[in-house]
Amino acid sequence: MSQQAVNGVPCRGKVLTVENMNPNVKRVEYAVRGPIVQRAVQIEKELREGVKKPFTEVIKANIGDAQAMGQRPITFFRQVLALCSYPELLEDNKFPEDAKQRARRILDACGGHSIGAYSASQGIECIRQDVACYIERRDGGIPSNPDNIYLSTGASDAIVTILKLLVCGEGRDRTGVMISIPQYPLYSAALADLAAVQINYYLDEDNCWSLNVAELKRALNEAKQHCKPRVLCIINPGNPTGQVQSRQCIEDVIRFAKEEHLFLMADEVYQDNVYAEGCKFHSFKKVLFEMGPEYSSTVEMASFHSTSKCYMGECGFRGGYMEVINMDPEVKAQLTKLVSVRLCPPVPGQALLDLVVNPPQPDEPSYTSFMKERTAVLAALAEKARLTEEIFNTVPGITCNPVQGAMYTFPRITLPPKAIDKAKAEGKVPDMFYCMKLLEEEGICLVPGSGFGQKDGTFHFRFASLVMLILQKYSHSLNFSPFCLITTNFSAFHGFFFLFFCFTS
Amino acid sequence: MSQQAVNGVPCRGKVLTVENMNPNVKRVEYAVRGPIVQRAVQIEKELREGVKKPFTEVIKANIGDAQAMGQRPITFFRQVLALCSYPELLEDNKFPEDAKQRARRILDACGGHSIGAYSASQGIECIRQDVACYIERRDGGIPSNPDNIYLSTGASDAIVTILKLLVCGEGRDRTGVMISIPQYPLYSAALADLAAVQINYYLDEDNCWSLNVAELKRALNEAKQHCKPRVLCIINPGNPTGQVQSRQCIEDVIRFAKEEHLFLMADEVYQDNVYAEGCKFHSFKKVLFEMGPEYSSTVEMASFHSTSKCYMGECGFRGGYMEVINMDPEVKAQLTKLVSVRLCPPVPGQALLDLVVNPPQPDEPSYTSFMKERTAVLAALAEKARLTEEIFNTVPGITCNPVQGAMYTFPRITLPPKAIDKAKAEGKVPDMFYCMKLLEEEGICLVPGSGFGQKDGTFHFRFASLVMLILQKYSHSLNFSPFCLITTNFSAFHGFFFLFFCFTS
Repeated sequence: MSQQAVNGVPCRGKVLTVENMNPNVKRVEYAVRGPIVQRAVQIEKELREGVKKPFTEVIKANIGDAQAMGQRPITFFRQVLALCSYPELLEDNKFPEDAKQRARRILDACGGHSIGAYSASQGIECIRQDVACYIERRDGGIPSNPDNIYLSTGASDAIVTILKLLVCGEGRDRTGVMISIPQYPLYSAALADLAAVQINYYLDEDNCWSLNVAELKRALNEAKQHCKPRVLCIINPGNPTGQVQSRQCIEDVIRFAKEEHLFLMADEVYQDNVYAEGCKFHSFKKVLFEMGPEYSSTVEMASFHSTSKCYMGECGFRGGYMEVINMDPEVKAQLTKLVSVRLCPPVPGQALLDLVVNPPQPDEPSYTSFMKERTAVLAALAEKARLTEEIFNTVPGITCNPVQGAMYTFPRITLPPKAIDKAKAEGKVPDMFYCMKLLEEEGICLVPGSGFGQKDGTFHFRFASLVMLILQKYSHSLNFSPFCLITTNFSAFHGFFFLFFCFTS
Repeated sequence: MSQQAVNGVPCRGKVLTVENMNPNVKRVEYAVRGPIVQRAVQIEKELREGVKKPFTEVIKANIGDAQAMGQRPITFFRQVLALCSYPELLEDNKFPEDAKQRARRILDACGGHSIGAYSASQGIECIRQDVACYIERRDGGIPSNPDNIYLSTGASDAIVTILKLLVCGEGRDRTGVMISIPQYPLYSAALADLAAVQINYYLDEDNCWSLNVAELKRALNEAKQHCKPRVLCIINPGNPTGQVQSRQCIEDVIRFAKEEHLFLMADEVYQDNVYAEGCKFHSFKKVLFEMGPEYSSTVEMASFHSTSKCYMGECGFRGGYMEVINMDPEVKAQLTKLVSVRLCPPVPGQALLDLVVNPPQPDEPSYTSFMKERTAVLAALAEKARLTEEIFNTVPGITCNPVQGAMYTFPRITLPPKAIDKAKAEGKVPDMFYCMKLLEEEGICLVPGSGFGQKDGTFHFRFASLVMLILQKYSHSLNFSPFCLITTNFSAFHGFFFLFFCFTS
């Protein structure tokens, strides 16, 4: 406890200090909203206060926040949500009949016919049934049991909950969790919080960030020396790397998980975000069941989905679900108990999820406009993904794999030795130094690769391709080439922009 | 790892079993949604399937879920939420101008003017400002800083987050957290999950569940033998006990916290639910500041509020906030980092919270109807509270303190020895046995006192007074006196109901 003296009288310091707080929390890092983003918020404030900058707005490419970047919500979804919020509108002729019918069905499933009542902790029953039907359709008829569906507060909530169940043991018996590098930092943050052991397996940048079972084996065998590996986490389509796994790769991963007795966590929140020709989303569940009962009746798995991504981009509603497969019934009872402590996921998010898994059907009045909006959003996302790869690869010092899916790319930057020296002199990781400069000079907010993990000696950043069209307005900005860092004369920084972007737009 | 043999071939058991799962999770208990409630859900299903029971519906008195019990949401709130969900309605003349103005202001504060965008992790800035203004008005002008406000996913989320920050140490140095007995089981559940030490202090049932500093001292001193007490949690108005603390008591508690160097957690989610004559809600913040700088500049505190209770009862939206006071700035930075991992609280819940703290003003068109609805809800809650006390005290074997505030009472039941014996023979805690019988025989779902904690040898249940008017329809049900348990002839159970209730209705 720190001791301080005020007016000569010794007094006790704070009850809670950074020295005596939970050490696991201190180890948590979450770069997607880390120091770069905090500085971005400050800069936005400075701009509002009239401070002159070389730019007039901060472009937030740090996060996949579609509606913040101007993507319009799906009209049908919002109509139903308005009807659920204020059921008096059910008498209003302006709303299509199918929207009213959906709202009535959701309200009928709510306590007191209101989305203001708590739901069951696992989620509203008829919505879990709709989720199960959605999964069955998606997976070509492979059965899904609503009892295995848990609605959640975004996918993050469900991912942390499953990790929490799996953590036990001390020392060399402590649970180890395999995560990809680069990874989405929710995983490393949750593992730090839970004091679980993080086991890194590296994606193959030279092969479009593909996953290689030999690398899984290497990582697992090394980890067995100091922890007890129990869990394998996969993000497909990839975040931050934008790759889409082949069916063969998924099969290999499932075989590996079975052989090595690992619980599989499949983060599939970008399942509708697949753009590249020849690429297709294969759910882990479907591949598992196609591999026959030897696998489908034994491999334990949880798959996660969310309302925040895909064509809807409804991040603010914090809707999501998970499906658990082959989970021990007693463990499932413990899971149900655990989620009950937080009472229930937000009901508006549950309602939204219901619409996502049960959208307008061809014979319903809203179908045509729904499909038109959905197709337009997905086409725009695909175009942004294409432009992202194309443009980054024209910038000297930047190389970028194709954005096969999800909403991100993770371009590699070749930083000149002088820039690395300069970063080190400032006590910064080189790609953090690069991203901070880009923010200060160009107003573009990116998360450095170090926030996601990368091979030693390589540098990257994550770029949310959602902002691509906004960046076109500021065409010079993308030409913030790492080579401008060759000079250490930062006052002359601006002169080093290459204007390649202008040639493409 | 359990070993099983299938067709004579030995095979490995599940990766995740109840034996090898997180032991902290196993220790979590949450009676509000525990076995009684699970059985209630089953019974509801049986009723729907046509099974004959002595009742036609299950009355859920286990939880304070106002809208599920028929309370109507506040029209103005729902209008604004509908406008935020589907902004095309802003062109609709049916909505009052003040509702539109509120919706526009909220949307302007959202990324891309949409509640579908992520917000800042701490919550939308202008809503945090409105919360700070609300607190200042509530507390007679004592300043509140929006930087100290964190919006949350209901109050539960914020309570768990603060507890998480405070937990550290091993063995005798492990953080101890003082909670009242009876308590709201979120606390014991969170402490089990965090492997913190629960320190029980007992409320004084004979003095209307009042809090006594001598008892705090006793509990603290005993706990110092085996842990490091760092936190004192208070629920005022009380859950499950319905008492309202006097100003003097709050002052005593604050003095105790300062002397004993404890972090104060003030759960004040029922701050608008005060019914008894002579009782008034005093916020811990206000009393702290009225005690002068010796206290107001040193005592570390967090206060919690929610959109789920009071007159709004919007549980499903999962809105809430906390205000932190005198928190070390470095710790605050850690708190901000920690909440960022979950991205943001649900934005519809944030919007709702904004309306709660910034309701229609006297010069606005919705003011009159808003006040009328608010007053009617609070009057109905007060009437239910009054009836609850009055009626329970007419039932033989039940004694009940006045419901001064909140939404619950925690009546004591005197169970005859034969009933206790019968319970023991069935391996049940006696009040669990009583509540389970009440559910099976009468369709009333209550949580037994053992789920909240009680003095050894006493038995209680928590009763959400919200259901009082529904119960009047089934007037015999409340007369399920413990004395009917004198007999062990349970087939004759029904004949033992005393019909005292009829005399009062």
